Amino acid sequence: MSAASQALRTAKRTGREIELVVVERGSWTSYSACGIPYWVAGDVPEVDDLVARSPEEHRSHGLDVRMGTEATEIDVGARVVHIRELATGVTQRLPFDQLVVGTGAVPIRPDLPGVWADGVHGLQTLDDGQALLDTLTSQRQPRRAVVVGAGYIGVEVAEACCRRGLETTVVDLAPEPMTTLDPDMGARVRQAMEAMGVQVRTSTAVEGFVVGDDGWVTGVQAGGEVLPADLVVLGIGVRPNTALAREAGLPLGVSGGLRVDRRQAVLGHEGIWAAGDCVESFDRVGQTWVHVPLGTHANKQGRVLGTNLAGGYDTFPGVVRTAISKVCDLEIARTGLGEADAEELGFRVAVGTVESHTTAGYMPGAGAMTVKVVAERRTGRMLGAQIVGAGPGAGKRIDSCALALWNGMSAGDLAMTDLAYAPPFSPVWDPVQIAARKAAEAAKRP
Amino acid sequence: MSAASQALRTAKRTGREIELVVVERGSWTSYSACGIPYWVAGDVPEVDDLVARSPEEHRSHGLDVRMGTEATEIDVGARVVHIRELATGVTQRLPFDQLVVGTGAVPIRPDLPGVWADGVHGLQTLDDGQALLDTLTSQRQPRRAVVVGAGYIGVEVAEACCRRGLETTVVDLAPEPMTTLDPDMGARVRQAMEAMGVQVRTSTAVEGFVVGDDGWVTGVQAGGEVLPADLVVLGIGVRPNTALAREAGLPLGVSGGLRVDRRQAVLGHEGIWAAGDCVESFDRVGQTWVHVPLGTHANKQGRVLGTNLAGGYDTFPGVVRTAISKVCDLEIARTGLGEADAEELGFRVAVGTVESHTTAGYMPGAGAMTVKVVAERRTGRMLGAQIVGAGPGAGKRIDSCALALWNGMSAGDLAMTDLAYAPPFSPVWDPVQIAARKAAEAAKRP
Repeated sequence: MSAASQALRTAKRTGREIELVVVERGSWTSYSACGIPYWVAGDVPEVDDLVARSPEEHRSHGLDVRMGTEATEIDVGARVVHIRELATGVTQRLPFDQLVVGTGAVPIRPDLPGVWADGVHGLQTLDDGQALLDTLTSQRQPRRAVVVGAGYIGVEVAEACCRRGLETTVVDLAPEPMTTLDPDMGARVRQAMEAMGVQVRTSTAVEGFVVGDDGWVTGVQAGGEVLPADLVVLGIGVRPNTALAREAGLPLGVSGGLRVDRRQAVLGHEGIWAAGDCVESFDRVGQTWVHVPLGTHANKQGRVLGTNLAGGYDTFPGVVRTAISKVCDLEIARTGLGEADAEELGFRVAVGTVESHTTAGYMPGAGAMTVKVVAERRTGRMLGAQIVGAGPGAGKRIDSCALALWNGMSAGDLAMTDLAYAPPFSPVWDPVQIAARKAAEAAKRP
Repeated sequence: MSAASQALRTAKRTGREIELVVVERGSWTSYSACGIPYWVAGDVPEVDDLVARSPEEHRSHGLDVRMGTEATEIDVGARVVHIRELATGVTQRLPFDQLVVGTGAVPIRPDLPGVWADGVHGLQTLDDGQALLDTLTSQRQPRRAVVVGAGYIGVEVAEACCRRGLETTVVDLAPEPMTTLDPDMGARVRQAMEAMGVQVRTSTAVEGFVVGDDGWVTGVQAGGEVLPADLVVLGIGVRPNTALAREAGLPLGVSGGLRVDRRQAVLGHEGIWAAGDCVESFDRVGQTWVHVPLGTHANKQGRVLGTNLAGGYDTFPGVVRTAISKVCDLEIARTGLGEADAEELGFRVAVGTVESHTTAGYMPGAGAMTVKVVAERRTGRMLGAQIVGAGPGAGKRIDSCALALWNGMSAGDLAMTDLAYAPPFSPVWDPVQIAARKAAEAAKRP
């Protein structure tokens, strides 16, 4: 919808005539999927709070929005999309001059016994959120939740369940939660989750789901035992929803995401565009194409795409893989490459880690925070950073590291930049700068 | 002390013999002057909390620290410093191979009738802080405070007085408080101060101080009337404490600060060094030398200086004039050039201002924040940014702008960078990025 809206704005400015048809299988437009865990937790009271613009509002801006309608085939040669209205089964051929693929991502549902049982929830769409809320508030009065997957969604949902008073267990195959962090930083997330009463079962494979006679899940078979469960949430991650694009012969990368150029044009297919969770983005640090499903990239890519589609020129400059989340008061953030990522790409790394505070240590409420900076040996170039610390004020410091990566700065340079200092906001050296200085020193050692 | 400590560390690493004598007029070493307002406010319970390292601790690391001792003359030709012990009047000649000038800054005390009366406080040293606390808790039971100057110190002290239950009035000559912000942003600070019950008298000149028969201040003569006062705090600012350096013939800039090179060597005087509030620093944006008295620069410059003094090589890369403060929950931050600063330096500017939130708008406790970005017309290069907004999470976002300035980024580039997004931390476009995008668009207009 970001692309469509921007295309309309650009067309208006350049005086072009443009007719835009939007086909959406679901019943919602322009909503914050990232906000769903906070709606489930009860922080966000109404589902409408998550909706930025309804189909009606989009229509009032001149978009032809077809809800409850599925695209079933893209005929690239004939420049036609086949669509079908779900309620009626009526099909139609939509000819196009230009096409935007914004099919997003789909949650991964492992092919395990019982995975489709009642009470086993995914959590990607508003409808998924409503279903989970219905279960939580149902007459079954669930007491025990098992969350499969300890990534962003898994961790956020675990907090939501815990705060709603459920006995909550998180299961993950990896040795520590949050595998987008290095294990030493992930261990700190585990501690925080355990401190809030969440059971964390890591290095544990889920083998299946135990289902009761009424078709409702009663347990999760994992690591050779059964974890009792009145409800299960799958937070294993998502993959690009590109089946339609693949069938149409559009180019996909190793992640399964669509390959696009910097204008968000699908490679080799002038007039076909793609943006959001269904594409790969260029990682400026690793210089590889990666799948980073995140609303902020989708929104920016959509805007770029919309400008280009309507005859303007704009480019998406890539990502550095910045991400942030929280578990209760613990803020978790990362950017760039972790140690293992970097080594896999052939970098030799040096690390600086510091335990410091969000404010001057003598201020009341100074939050403990850990910053880890990964730099390239010899050059000292910043490769990545990770932060785990007590909020407020720990996590968003990752932005300084993200901008250092963006500009190809060395860790030593970042250490000497002019970041905001006053006792309620930072120690006299920002924790990020201390970690960067340590990484720079480590990078120089033979 | 940062310079001395780093010189010792460097000498140890390089195997040099070095004998370091530190001469300090006062009775404290290595303390956080920036923390004094929070001690006065009662946030920091003990003065010792503000002291990072006592004279004894420094001595145990091998420094010859002479407290209560004043340097009275620098004889550059003879390479001798004349010192005098304040308590005994005993004088001594200290020959040196290398000299560090770290004389800091002195608060400006306007030459007005009554300015030396009892109850009129400066606030720069720990002794100043103790004197103000003594007045606040004295048997006089002061009820009405007048703060002269609405800059960082003035605003922070006004909050402290207000929170201690005093009727508090701030007087300043400028049309809005915080002249390091543009007036449109300063007006928001005024609103916040007034909302917390502080009277703000701007565009008002202080003409003198009314003194009672007992020598104690009873009022402030300002703008043609008398503002009753049981105590007065001067927060007019500081100037480099360089009288000794000037008499010695060392080079000073227009601000009165010592002129140094990137190694913190005093220009034209090999083996004489200076750092901290007594020097000028290079402003990377304006490409001018400026006086920015701030602990974080002093600390970094000292470290650089110490390395160089002991035979190593390090450089201070300059500043972009980042600063941050708060008044109750309102966070105030700035970096780079304001509109007027920029125009004075010959820039033609474009501005982008946005009202947004610290988190996704639908999250509970989303704080309202205003960001203003100043960019150069035509090139769109970032020149500065200012933030006024509800904490937590508003002010420290200035670091993203500071790093954009540091790297010479355009506002349009900043708008498309990969900053951390999740609903508890940011709208889908960070407020800083929306303001930058608006500034970039404005810069393109003819």
